[in-house]
Amino acid sequence: MKVGFIGLGHMGSGMAANLLRAGHELTVFNRTAAKRRALVELGAREAATVGDACGGEVVVSMLADDSALRRIALGDEGIIDNLRRGAVHVSMSTVSVELTRDLNQAHEQAGQKFVAAPVFGRPDMAAAAKLFIVAAGAADATRICQPLLDCMGQRTFPFGTEPADASLVKLAGNFMLAATIETLGEALTLTAKGGIEPGAFVELLTSTLFPAPAYRTYGALIAQSKFEPAGFAAPLGHKDVRLLLAAAEALRVPMPIGSLLNERFLRLLAQGGENLDWSAISHLAAADAGLPRISRS
Amino acid sequence: MKVGFIGLGHMGSGMAANLLRAGHELTVFNRTAAKRRALVELGAREAATVGDACGGEVVVSMLADDSALRRIALGDEGIIDNLRRGAVHVSMSTVSVELTRDLNQAHEQAGQKFVAAPVFGRPDMAAAAKLFIVAAGAADATRICQPLLDCMGQRTFPFGTEPADASLVKLAGNFMLAATIETLGEALTLTAKGGIEPGAFVELLTSTLFPAPAYRTYGALIAQSKFEPAGFAAPLGHKDVRLLLAAAEALRVPMPIGSLLNERFLRLLAQGGENLDWSAISHLAAADAGLPRISRS
Amino acid sequence: MKVGFIGLGHMGSGMAANLLRAGHELTVFNRTAAKRRALVELGAREAATVGDACGGEVVVSMLADDSALRRIALGDEGIIDNLRRGAVHVSMSTVSVELTRDLNQAHEQAGQKFVAAPVFGRPDMAAAAKLFIVAAGAADATRICQPLLDCMGQRTFPFGTEPADASLVKLAGNFMLAATIETLGEALTLTAKGGIEPGAFVELLTSTLFPAPAYRTYGALIAQSKFEPAGFAAPLGHKDVRLLLAAAEALRVPMPIGSLLNERFLRLLAQGGENLDWSAISHLAAADAGLPRISRS
Amino acid sequence: MKVGFIGLGHMGSGMAANLLRAGHELTVFNRTAAKRRALVELGAREAATVGDACGGEVVVSMLADDSALRRIALGDEGIIDNLRRGAVHVSMSTVSVELTRDLNQAHEQAGQKFVAAPVFGRPDMAAAAKLFIVAAGAADATRICQPLLDCMGQRTFPFGTEPADASLVKLAGNFMLAATIETLGEALTLTAKGGIEPGAFVELLTSTLFPAPAYRTYGALIAQSKFEPAGFAAPLGHKDVRLLLAAAEALRVPMPIGSLLNERFLRLLAQGGENLDWSAISHLAAADAGLPRISRS
Repeated sequence: MKVGFIGLGHMGSGMAANLLRAGHELTVFNRTAAKRRALVELGAREAATVGDACGGEVVVSMLADDSALRRIALGDEGIIDNLRRGAVHVSMSTVSVELTRDLNQAHEQAGQKFVAAPVFGRPDMAAAAKLFIVAAGAADATRICQPLLDCMGQRTFPFGTEPADASLVKLAGNFMLAATIETLGEALTLTAKGGIEPGAFVELLTSTLFPAPAYRTYGALIAQSKFEPAGFAAPLGHKDVRLLLAAAEALRVPMPIGSLLNERFLRLLAQGGENLDWSAISHLAAADAGLPRISRS
Repeated sequence: MKVGFIGLGHMGSGMAANLLRAGHELTVFNRTAAKRRALVELGAREAATVGDACGGEVVVSMLADDSALRRIALGDEGIIDNLRRGAVHVSMSTVSVELTRDLNQAHEQAGQKFVAAPVFGRPDMAAAAKLFIVAAGAADATRICQPLLDCMGQRTFPFGTEPADASLVKLAGNFMLAATIETLGEALTLTAKGGIEPGAFVELLTSTLFPAPAYRTYGALIAQSKFEPAGFAAPLGHKDVRLLLAAAEALRVPMPIGSLLNERFLRLLAQGGENLDWSAISHLAAADAGLPRISRS
Repeated sequence: MKVGFIGLGHMGSGMAANLLRAGHELTVFNRTAAKRRALVELGAREAATVGDACGGEVVVSMLADDSALRRIALGDEGIIDNLRRGAVHVSMSTVSVELTRDLNQAHEQAGQKFVAAPVFGRPDMAAAAKLFIVAAGAADATRICQPLLDCMGQRTFPFGTEPADASLVKLAGNFMLAATIETLGEALTLTAKGGIEPGAFVELLTSTLFPAPAYRTYGALIAQSKFEPAGFAAPLGHKDVRLLLAAAEALRVPMPIGSLLNERFLRLLAQGGENLDWSAISHLAAADAGLPRISRS
Repeated sequence: MKVGFIGLGHMGSGMAANLLRAGHELTVFNRTAAKRRALVELGAREAATVGDACGGEVVVSMLADDSALRRIALGDEGIIDNLRRGAVHVSMSTVSVELTRDLNQAHEQAGQKFVAAPVFGRPDMAAAAKLFIVAAGAADATRICQPLLDCMGQRTFPFGTEPADASLVKLAGNFMLAATIETLGEALTLTAKGGIEPGAFVELLTSTLFPAPAYRTYGALIAQSKFEPAGFAAPLGHKDVRLLLAAAEALRVPMPIGSLLNERFLRLLAQGGENLDWSAISHLAAADAGLPRISRS
């Protein structure tokens, strides 16, 4: 298929490479040209402008946040201005429910199709085509882009025809992860202060009731107090919690753990944690208990 | 081995039966005689008093709460008064850190051995000898009772020589479960109010980041708003949260999610939820959002 | 002085009347013409457009929220477009720190002066010229408008030269009030459920440690569960808490009581409390304790 | 009247002196003899044992906490054992609802009368006979001791015939104070980080909506970050919050601000704040925002 790909960051570059490997004819765009070159070496055509990447049946975007996606899609000479009628924009970024709704409306008015398809998974899973994809959009649009999603992820979870629903589900999923981090932080602080070896407690959890990647990954990081280098940086975690609370505000849903997480991130950032992994909020529970760290040494 | 077993409730009766099946010579005691009979039919000797169950090398206790265990162990004509020197008391109830410490001290003064070995698992897992056991006590004591634990559980996690540590670990594990319920409640309320089918969201979670029994079990109950009959009743859940907070208080560990859970259980009980499963606290997040229930019908 | 006045709601109409009574030459504007008439009868000139009200040395605005003020001030044919160079805009609405900053910048660029002067007090205090005014702006600007503020309030508290500071102070003051409501709600729920007569407890507080208008006013409303008609409606209270949290977010200040208040208002509104006084959040503490209401009958 | 007085701490010594000044025939007891001497110089008789102080019509107790009062009243050779039938025990300590109930029952069984009369006020108010007294007990008992209360306080607030109610009211009052400290801490952190001078903000509050001793006292301490020497030490504040939460637990009343306060005190004590005034919890809000302190220098 003739496909454009916009946004070649840690996630996007691996995803685009997987589309190339599957034989799709790819045109890539990234603000900093350096990142395009690696893809060009793999066989991609290089776009000089957003418009250049919008000539095919589908354009995929994978951008950092609301403001980047808003500019690229709705801005002057953006996707809306350039995509031809009937073509599909697949937005795979984690962005707000509100922006997803705005984009859907703008594409509709322009006679274009729109699918929101945010992903769960870290860069290594993106490179290995092992992402989990949450997709929502009109049936004809999702049908067109499904073969592309299959090249990038291990499974697509369909969530109906309303793109904004995919963004809501993605934000709720990230909330589950952040809440797991906070919960592990409190439990490991309690047990560590009580003299229990953190690794042993994590081993118990992940061998019994919580044999899940989320608990293994974050349990290990927290038990070792290892928050650098950041796999997913604290400011990004904070951003997602704020998008969650904005969605909750619009739907009038009080979320006490959501509020607590927001306070934790604000504090982490106020105290200088910009470069730490988002799991460093667990350290705050330890600090509150007078423990310099959860791990023993 | 010659073993006494005290406490034949939903959990204890299955555990005792597994000891019998493994060929141990069992003497059972329960306050209400009716429960002893089923075990007698399986070959157990019936004890008329606590003391009658304390004649062997080991006595196992599996009781409802602190006050029951305190009375049976430390009360007049209790375990301490009756166990012979060098014999082992294995306490498998979920009780406070403080009581566990008191029991250990009392047994030491009486020249007896003490092991705390609380379990994770519901009655069906107890019956199937599939419990997960957290054990702590002096090395010689745990060595003696390990063959018995092997008959009752699928795996024993050793947590050193201090019995109170096993109680702390067990309470922290239950906290992880209760926090999972609350987190699921908030996330499912948000997504359900946004129009997402609850079962689909749980399917996403348990197929990706959270493929764990805790999420499958509670995700299903909450998605269906099915809180009766209670697998683990709300007052017991509340009790465990209070024991957690008492341990946290003694160790000076602030636990914001622990506090939130305590407020949730107080509210559930104040509003008449005595007979509901503890996962019914998830319903409170829904009520706060003006949803009569999370499930669709 | 030749003064324009924009916004003749519950608060603005009383404030404008006081300026007239003091002999100022007033031109009034309100979106709905009906409200202008009462002021015209008191001697005001009627403006047909925002621009008509911007011909004097000072224009005062008193509007419902950010979006109204943004439109009236920054919109097409708004205050910025119409005020002459060197004239002063005194904004007395409770609005966001961010909008206050935007307005100040826009006025500066247009060669106009800007003072933020939000007020504490209900409509009866506005009518009686008993408002407390928090004012911030450049020295020459505040000097010009001080005589006007003196006609509308009993005291002006100067907070320096940065208009946004006045908005921050005003939002923090409203937070203090909302927190007082929540605290009273929790304390009165506890004592009422324990059998204490609510009025007696409020009498104790306001006769000893808390002899303050905030405690008298809200103590009485809560003790009587009297939330209609609304003196200050719940959606307005919610708006102010959201502006507070936005300011706290920008400054990276975690505010746990602020978060709790936001959850309370979201819940009150989700459960149908749109028309209640904002003190009705106190009722949620009572509901959580299984009390239908705090007052006895 | 012939009166015994037990407990000559910071509060009790001033209260006893006021009884002497009013001409009552006082016998005083304190564990450390040194403290009795000052009262003896004012004309008191010295008691060598608790029993020696129980020979009159009334015995007043003013002790540090539950365990001290429990031992002095219910212990061997305590008040219950020594007071004559028909005489009155007036307990003025801040203690748990549960202990107050136990004491009332014990006195009833012994044919004695019991009044709970906890006080609001610091040592200087005790010395100046300016305490506010919350009193509850049987009508005949309160009638007997009212003249004594009148010597020690500026006003007595009667709360019926059930002594435990006075303890509940007192704990709820202290909760109001602690919540005021937390609220001021959050608001002053926000405004200080925004550049507002803390003293100016406190001046605004106490000149307008909150002209109350609680706001003046704690506003000044927090604005100056002055937490030593402790007027009311953090461990005592924590104790009162725990008694509050125990009462709330028994009545099944969730109190989110109560929980937050408990977390704040646990953290303050875990981080080494034993000797600070309880208003030092306000410093935690500042620390969370990355401010070393609220005051400017």
